[in-house]
Amino acid sequence: MTAPLFNRLALIGVGLIGSSIARAARSTGSVGSIVATARSPETRRRVAELGLADQVVETAAEAVKGADLIIACVPVGACGAVAAEIGPHLAPGATVSDVGSVKAAIVRDMAPHLPPHVHFVPAHPVAGTEHSGPDAGFAELFVNRWCILTPPPSTDAAATERLAAFWRAIGAKVEIMTPEHHDLVLAITSHLPHLIAYTIVGTADELAQVTRSEVLQFSAGGFRDFTRIAASDPTMWRDVFLHNKEAVLEMLGTFSEDLSQLTRAIRRGDGEALFEHFTRTRAIRRGIVEIGQDSPAPDFGRPHPDLPQGALPRPYAADES
Amino acid sequence: MTAPLFNRLALIGVGLIGSSIARAARSTGSVGSIVATARSPETRRRVAELGLADQVVETAAEAVKGADLIIACVPVGACGAVAAEIGPHLAPGATVSDVGSVKAAIVRDMAPHLPPHVHFVPAHPVAGTEHSGPDAGFAELFVNRWCILTPPPSTDAAATERLAAFWRAIGAKVEIMTPEHHDLVLAITSHLPHLIAYTIVGTADELAQVTRSEVLQFSAGGFRDFTRIAASDPTMWRDVFLHNKEAVLEMLGTFSEDLSQLTRAIRRGDGEALFEHFTRTRAIRRGIVEIGQDSPAPDFGRPHPDLPQGALPRPYAADES
Repeated sequence: MTAPLFNRLALIGVGLIGSSIARAARSTGSVGSIVATARSPETRRRVAELGLADQVVETAAEAVKGADLIIACVPVGACGAVAAEIGPHLAPGATVSDVGSVKAAIVRDMAPHLPPHVHFVPAHPVAGTEHSGPDAGFAELFVNRWCILTPPPSTDAAATERLAAFWRAIGAKVEIMTPEHHDLVLAITSHLPHLIAYTIVGTADELAQVTRSEVLQFSAGGFRDFTRIAASDPTMWRDVFLHNKEAVLEMLGTFSEDLSQLTRAIRRGDGEALFEHFTRTRAIRRGIVEIGQDSPAPDFGRPHPDLPQGALPRPYAADES
Repeated sequence: MTAPLFNRLALIGVGLIGSSIARAARSTGSVGSIVATARSPETRRRVAELGLADQVVETAAEAVKGADLIIACVPVGACGAVAAEIGPHLAPGATVSDVGSVKAAIVRDMAPHLPPHVHFVPAHPVAGTEHSGPDAGFAELFVNRWCILTPPPSTDAAATERLAAFWRAIGAKVEIMTPEHHDLVLAITSHLPHLIAYTIVGTADELAQVTRSEVLQFSAGGFRDFTRIAASDPTMWRDVFLHNKEAVLEMLGTFSEDLSQLTRAIRRGDGEALFEHFTRTRAIRRGIVEIGQDSPAPDFGRPHPDLPQGALPRPYAADES
């Protein structure tokens, strides 16, 4: 029988991601025990009610005592303060990690507060849903999703591998890259899409010619696909944009140029340019489905209710007889 | 026993929408028989193989003979030519319709070719998936989706109501509006989202710093939500943008202003403005789920595979004993 990968996991922050880690770590048995804390008393109470941890404590400083794995599951902007609070209380040999969507700023903000006797392995599980809070999590959230680790060069390779084993145990696939490259990759695959979605949903809500109820009513034409990600946690996303400013602005520049080009094609009635572009983008969708990062079911497997039946006769039966 | 709503349905074009109408009309028994045609011999052959129609013919002119409901299910740009071809062959009292995503241009292009003895009721079912062709259709596609009718003022109200009854019989909810208002509503709920999605997917594919395989790999961070609509049929979408140019350019102007505003907030580090915007957009998502136009399941109900089990012990069982 294998031993748990870590004896005691301390979760600082228990929202969608933190509570999913708790559920997954527990149901796979990959840690011995879980201690959790959250800033708000309501969240702590809810975590206790849901039974997500063996122990719920009031402060991060208290939570990390005796823990050999500490994961900060708080918005990116709060990670520096968490590191400052826990730094003096960390056990020698403990692994300190996070789940932030930005990595260079995390390294910059957390590393200075961590003592030399701990292992610092920043992490970013590329998974999530449009829901937030401790109730929103589920144990399968990370299955078949990527978790990116961005250890500083000084981090012990064995510590990185041990954290990688933890993520694999709860279903994720692990990739290692530099914080700077991570921030560029995520700027295009996640941060820019969110910014665009937030923008267009806001635009639709402010139109004079089209009412909000019309926008909702006819959203199946494409708009609703943007609303899911524009419903993501506002605090988390504010921090992402404030902490990955350069990469996001760079991608935004390229996007705006490309949008101008397509706008020009529409204005000039250049059907050939539009057709060529629309054909190229189709291949990318195919690639995502092939590598298992999305469902091939039409409408992302959204349920389609049954057809109304019985209201009308079935003339075919008569025709065929 | 109620009689079918129409005796003979002629489908001109049998892609995703046409083949879904065929399947739905047949399985609800809302028409007596179906005749279908398509421009390409391969599509006609496939329609016959799938048994989607009672009869498959080579030309639109032939298809409409004796039909009392004719639905052109071809790209918007082809509707004028279809009307010109079928005009001389239409039976008196027949209803002529379409399924185009643009309506003012359809009225402009089709109406002049139709004889006064038929009823012209343009229609747009706001439903679809990222797949195309006769194999992609399914009978439930229109259930709980809206179908917008945009009859010209001269159209007989009874004819409009009869077509509305047909769409309701195959599961849709019906709304009536002017072609011009339709084009504005769809510009924001469908056309602009598609244009933005096509743009960002193209941008991601051209980056020097991030490889295509990285984009695919980490697409679960938000990007994949854009790829579905950027995988839609290129011919159809080229025609939409060419035929709803003014409304799309107008919405695009507003969107670009809003994007500049958010970009400025990021550049200046204005967290408050970002937070305020991101909070507002969340409410819209809630509205769409409430009125049943999307699934509330996390990730749009995308399947989450099971957790890996058995690889590790379950220490909790031991702890609790």
